[in-house]
Amino acid sequence: MKRTELSDLGEFGLIEYLTKDIQHQQPSTFKGVGDDAAVIDHGSKKTVVSTDLLIENVHFDLIYTPLKHLGYKAVVVNLSDIYAMNAKPTQITVSIAVSNRFSVEAVRELYEGIHLACKMYNVDLIGGDTTSSIKGLMISVTALGEAKEEELVYRDTAQVGDLICASGDFGAAYVGLQLLEREKEVYLANPDMQPKLEEKNYIVGRILKPEARKDIYDFFQQANLIPTSMIDVSDGLSSEIRHICHQSKVGALVEESGIYIREEPFMKALDFKLDPLICALHGGEDYELLFTINPKDVEKIKFNMDIRILGEIVPDEDGIHLHTKGGQMRDLIAQGWQHH
Amino acid sequence: MKRTELSDLGEFGLIEYLTKDIQHQQPSTFKGVGDDAAVIDHGSKKTVVSTDLLIENVHFDLIYTPLKHLGYKAVVVNLSDIYAMNAKPTQITVSIAVSNRFSVEAVRELYEGIHLACKMYNVDLIGGDTTSSIKGLMISVTALGEAKEEELVYRDTAQVGDLICASGDFGAAYVGLQLLEREKEVYLANPDMQPKLEEKNYIVGRILKPEARKDIYDFFQQANLIPTSMIDVSDGLSSEIRHICHQSKVGALVEESGIYIREEPFMKALDFKLDPLICALHGGEDYELLFTINPKDVEKIKFNMDIRILGEIVPDEDGIHLHTKGGQMRDLIAQGWQHH
Repeated sequence: MKRTELSDLGEFGLIEYLTKDIQHQQPSTFKGVGDDAAVIDHGSKKTVVSTDLLIENVHFDLIYTPLKHLGYKAVVVNLSDIYAMNAKPTQITVSIAVSNRFSVEAVRELYEGIHLACKMYNVDLIGGDTTSSIKGLMISVTALGEAKEEELVYRDTAQVGDLICASGDFGAAYVGLQLLEREKEVYLANPDMQPKLEEKNYIVGRILKPEARKDIYDFFQQANLIPTSMIDVSDGLSSEIRHICHQSKVGALVEESGIYIREEPFMKALDFKLDPLICALHGGEDYELLFTINPKDVEKIKFNMDIRILGEIVPDEDGIHLHTKGGQMRDLIAQGWQHH
Repeated sequence: MKRTELSDLGEFGLIEYLTKDIQHQQPSTFKGVGDDAAVIDHGSKKTVVSTDLLIENVHFDLIYTPLKHLGYKAVVVNLSDIYAMNAKPTQITVSIAVSNRFSVEAVRELYEGIHLACKMYNVDLIGGDTTSSIKGLMISVTALGEAKEEELVYRDTAQVGDLICASGDFGAAYVGLQLLEREKEVYLANPDMQPKLEEKNYIVGRILKPEARKDIYDFFQQANLIPTSMIDVSDGLSSEIRHICHQSKVGALVEESGIYIREEPFMKALDFKLDPLICALHGGEDYELLFTINPKDVEKIKFNMDIRILGEIVPDEDGIHLHTKGGQMRDLIAQGWQHH
């Protein structure tokens, strides 16, 4: 039998390969695989469903991740997917698998973070599963949310001429992760030395305890603004821009000057001999909202200081480019640079 | 800091410990933790949500589990929870974590089983997550279903005088598992000898490719019968009877003669020097429906040959007992026997 390595397809390729033949049978299935969340039709409102599986030493490292922060983050990253549909999160289920390396107190700490996130975002924990694992910790979270049909925002609906916008700043979580990885090396080399996790640093907070942009969702409601397309930034700004473009069959022109990088991650990236722009474009885990708006709505975002315009949607044949501060045009690729 | 071992609490104790303080904030949360599934209010209909996490070498052994069967089973065990609410499954999400030990073709096989189960049970796969693991395979399935409010059946609503009923037969999956474990030992001792999985055996089919009782759900609809309480039998018949009793604050008198054990698992259990009744009471993974009905509805089940009456709900203070064929009264305990 033929053997194709998983790495040959990549995560997105694998999902596409596994789900390409799906035909829906239920009339209530409104939108299936392929967006931040699926949508189910429940009459007056639509239900939005998103799910994530987090694996120890793939998605988190318990050497520098407090369990309470981990529980909080596991919830938040799912809520971020619900907000990215312009929907309101309402319930979550949480399943965990733990080895006997963990005590009841440790699991309790994890759940304290989960409960705290539920409280902060006003969602209910309604179910789940607790099981043992041979080794390591796994967390599976499913989030449910609701929206009116006309409010839902997808990835495949950006139009040529739309403005590309994003909330917040980019690259900080990635630079924070580099800092933690370096602290870990010091710690592993000198077990007596506890890692000095300067938790009050913005960059460490961004990786260990991110927030979902509930405030931006609320702002859209108040401003009566419905983006033309939206996605949350988990895999990296560049990769998410490409998702919107591919699914909407359009191109994009992104201005480097529109990509906000805070001073702390900028300086720390330089300390680490990293290009801050690369960190912002490809770092991921920012959990900001990337969206497009019709130019007629530009007045609505003008006074929100946490939303920036990054560029413009252009025809598909014009490609996906970054206009650098130095005046160069570069292909905006999913990972790293492609030089000409 | 105090360290309590997970084994001190057990799975049910842990869930209770972790969820005891939950207060719901969303008006749409209708029923949270504590039943086969949670219930969300979407106006005209209710949405039912259930989730399970399956871990390699905890819940399945790939030495004798074909991946296609595993995918099928991962879906079916969740649908069983939805049917146990007397609801119709409509959608599922599936998340998997795989190490690079698995090829794309292997993952495809797993998904073939998932797609087949979706087709057989008329549910839509609407989302999920695919990620890498350091070691082993994990599968997380969330199932959604729908029901009218008045049709939903819970665990905590059995009444004194109700008849205790069950679909199908018990113990076969457990005896099937013993057979597979023995074949595995032979195989590990002589790697040249392939395990002879007589897949057409009923007992092996019960453990590797169980079915959820859609037919019983359909029968309830046709017969216009709403059980007074219901649960699906995953952890063992005895344990599930006790769940219904504890949550409904009632006792039970179960007749050994009402517990159906097929001839094949009965004889095979004896071959293995196991008590067939112990296998039926404590084996688990039968995925049958255990339910109670009001005695006035007894005529409705009389002509369904696959539903049997096991006993009667009695007052709480009368306890939970098994009346053996030999005329003895025994405490029906969660695991094993408690002699007097």
